[in-house]
Amino acid sequence: MVGCGLIGTSLGLALSGTRQVLLHDADPASLQAAVARGAGRPWDGRAWASGPDDVVVLCVPVAATAPALRRLQELGLGGTFTHVASVQGPLQRQVEALGCDPSSLCGGHPMAGKATSGPGAAEPGLFAGRPWFLCPSPRTTPQAQEAVRRLASDVGADPVVTTAEAHDRTVALVSHLPQVVSSALAAQLLQRDEAPRYAGPGLVDTTRLAGSPVELWRQVLSANAGEVAPLLRGLADDLLAAADELDTARPDDALPVVTALLARGGRGRALVPVKRESRDRDLEVVRVELPDTPGRLVAVLGLAASAGVNVEDLRLEHVPGRPSGTVELLVMRDARPLLQAALQQAGERLVDDER
Amino acid sequence: MVGCGLIGTSLGLALSGTRQVLLHDADPASLQAAVARGAGRPWDGRAWASGPDDVVVLCVPVAATAPALRRLQELGLGGTFTHVASVQGPLQRQVEALGCDPSSLCGGHPMAGKATSGPGAAEPGLFAGRPWFLCPSPRTTPQAQEAVRRLASDVGADPVVTTAEAHDRTVALVSHLPQVVSSALAAQLLQRDEAPRYAGPGLVDTTRLAGSPVELWRQVLSANAGEVAPLLRGLADDLLAAADELDTARPDDALPVVTALLARGGRGRALVPVKRESRDRDLEVVRVELPDTPGRLVAVLGLAASAGVNVEDLRLEHVPGRPSGTVELLVMRDARPLLQAALQQAGERLVDDER
Repeated sequence: MVGCGLIGTSLGLALSGTRQVLLHDADPASLQAAVARGAGRPWDGRAWASGPDDVVVLCVPVAATAPALRRLQELGLGGTFTHVASVQGPLQRQVEALGCDPSSLCGGHPMAGKATSGPGAAEPGLFAGRPWFLCPSPRTTPQAQEAVRRLASDVGADPVVTTAEAHDRTVALVSHLPQVVSSALAAQLLQRDEAPRYAGPGLVDTTRLAGSPVELWRQVLSANAGEVAPLLRGLADDLLAAADELDTARPDDALPVVTALLARGGRGRALVPVKRESRDRDLEVVRVELPDTPGRLVAVLGLAASAGVNVEDLRLEHVPGRPSGTVELLVMRDARPLLQAALQQAGERLVDDER
Repeated sequence: MVGCGLIGTSLGLALSGTRQVLLHDADPASLQAAVARGAGRPWDGRAWASGPDDVVVLCVPVAATAPALRRLQELGLGGTFTHVASVQGPLQRQVEALGCDPSSLCGGHPMAGKATSGPGAAEPGLFAGRPWFLCPSPRTTPQAQEAVRRLASDVGADPVVTTAEAHDRTVALVSHLPQVVSSALAAQLLQRDEAPRYAGPGLVDTTRLAGSPVELWRQVLSANAGEVAPLLRGLADDLLAAADELDTARPDDALPVVTALLARGGRGRALVPVKRESRDRDLEVVRVELPDTPGRLVAVLGLAASAGVNVEDLRLEHVPGRPSGTVELLVMRDARPLLQAALQQAGERLVDDER
């Protein structure tokens, strides 16, 4: 494990029960913290006789990955190499440009992470159930790919083999684009400082990502610039076409362009998994009034649990300036009447049959 | 009360304890449902002697509002007139064009509503704590404005006096723009059907509005087209400027344009009230691992309640394909150590110190 940040240390924690894990970090404090957490032993810096099942995982920033690979290969380190970069294509090209041996390298990207970083934030369960992209190059050996696949599997992740190009396009769409759009939307609010106080939950949800760390996203967006740029243009074009139509619109106009965009948005939204591969349409909402005192939500959820109903998701809907709110419980369609009956019987106030 | 949909019936329910409420609706079934729910008595269709404190509330679609006002005034109905249109300026102009008496009219807009409509979804508490915009025209009498202010106050709303223009600009920014942007973002997902399955909570949040009813939004957007169009252009310009910079970016570039946009987004996000006028920065997150079985969340929230900690907001973070998840509890800064201690003592697994 080279690099004892969040990902490297979490991997060490997840693997150290079943494999021998050697740790290295340019920062002695990070290395020490990872060792103290039980993520593995410090690497002595020497190469050893190794087969393809010995995997060297580079958990360093994307710009540092290819140079680190080259140094380790020059040192005579054998086995299989992988990394965890959130952007794959540019790295594959850089590795070739640096003259590294590409046959023992299979790039990877676990779709796991969190807002905090460093070995202190690491957890062995970080990868469980998450997709882990494997992006072999045409020169990657089957043995190297299999070794990395097994590693991902061993930490509970779900290995997904794809090309670097397909990977970079996917994360641009589902992760990088929403970030920039949320930031751009929130940025518009600055033109009328007082307006956001009238915000409803829609504005709260759509601008949540805009609170993300700028520096982290600068790195990601610069690395995947080629994939993100056309998506931004495509979305901007849709907004401009809508604006063009609205420019000449009169009240109650048919707005074919705008309504087509809204309809496409509805179809796109239906593709987003809300939970366990279920989509919005498989879940139903039960809304309950909720005075804002400790314990009220517990009572409501306790009633659900007593009725044997699993709450798949829930959202508190707050009203700024008002001490109480509403809780939306999302449950599977079948469970809804059961939950409603249980709540009503207990005297809870159901708000309506939303959605 | 003219119009017994969600808003009209909710108003009737909220007022019928303290005022005499007469109901009317072009659809006899809606009228009957509203009466059955106790929102008031049916109006006999005749005018009566009335002072400015008798308020006629037009709760009909925005396009029907001005014609309805004209008919009622021609009938000899006196008192004060108001409406609940989500767009104010165009309506004010239409009222004048139709030759209505504008002195007894003070437009209004309660910032309350829900995804479902009709008298069945009505609730008397719909307006409690919500802003209620009052948009008097220059010709509105002080008596009419005061009568509408008192009505809003009586149902628990927070009256906000503003101009029609300022109102329309505000709702364009905090409500209409996020809707179009969320739809446009979700629409992009259609180009890669399989990609959204790798979505994290960021994509789930940013595309939630995209599931809203198309027809409702067609009406709103066409009525407020003049305010929404420039916002769409401004946002599209920001996205295009970001795309331009990314076009020529190399990995780890400084990206001054993109980072400035991300930073502006962070500042805009900080203006969005998350709860009770508190902003993101006043709340702290405690994350707890949560096996996906009924009752687990109850146990965690029960511990919070026992510790006297009020959970201000919470989010379940789901991992598609994985039967468990994480719950994020947002609590006021002071309460955080207390909650952490209570949870740890009970053997709950805290995930990290995010945010």
